[in-house]
Amino acid sequence: MTSDNSIFIGPKPFMNYVTAVVMQFTMKNADEIVIKARGKFISRAVDVAEVATKRFLEGQAGVKGIVTGSEEFQNKEGKLVRVSAIEITLGRK
Amino acid sequence: MTSDNSIFIGPKPFMNYVTAVVMQFTMKNADEIVIKARGKFISRAVDVAEVATKRFLEGQAGVKGIVTGSEEFQNKEGKLVRVSAIEITLGRK
Repeated sequence: MTSDNSIFIGPKPFMNYVTAVVMQFTMKNADEIVIKARGKFISRAVDVAEVATKRFLEGQAGVKGIVTGSEEFQNKEGKLVRVSAIEITLGRK
Repeated sequence: MTSDNSIFIGPKPFMNYVTAVVMQFTMKNADEIVIKARGKFISRAVDVAEVATKRFLEGQAGVKGIVTGSEEFQNKEGKLVRVSAIEITLGRK
């Protein structure tokens, strides 16, 4: 999987992400894309996956697998912080 | 699966949910529990699963499967609203 097939969910307008996912399947002919998010954006990643597959790509693509994990990094104060992460793989049907 | 083995994530203090998960495995001897959440609480559900399995139940329990979906319901104004949902199944190792 190349990083081209990953979409990282952040604070941009919701439909930007949905459009990006749909475009990967319809215009770029991707077989699989991975929606990634951390922390509070995890809920949004699930929303993007649901809206993309159920409203725009129904019958064409669906959720193939979901993996969660934790990432650790140092914050500005040098403290080690743990944050949850999710990767939702969508695949062509 | 009985509903006793489900934990629904909401706005209560974070550690309440982690404790509930850990107790199911350690005190009630559950083989499997399901963490459920909707909307913005999805991120929290992943956090609960991560902290419970990695900090408190390491080597004892882990994530066995994750399913996402959408639920529709009528809001106060009678409008049909779609909300994403997640179910994270934890199992004994």
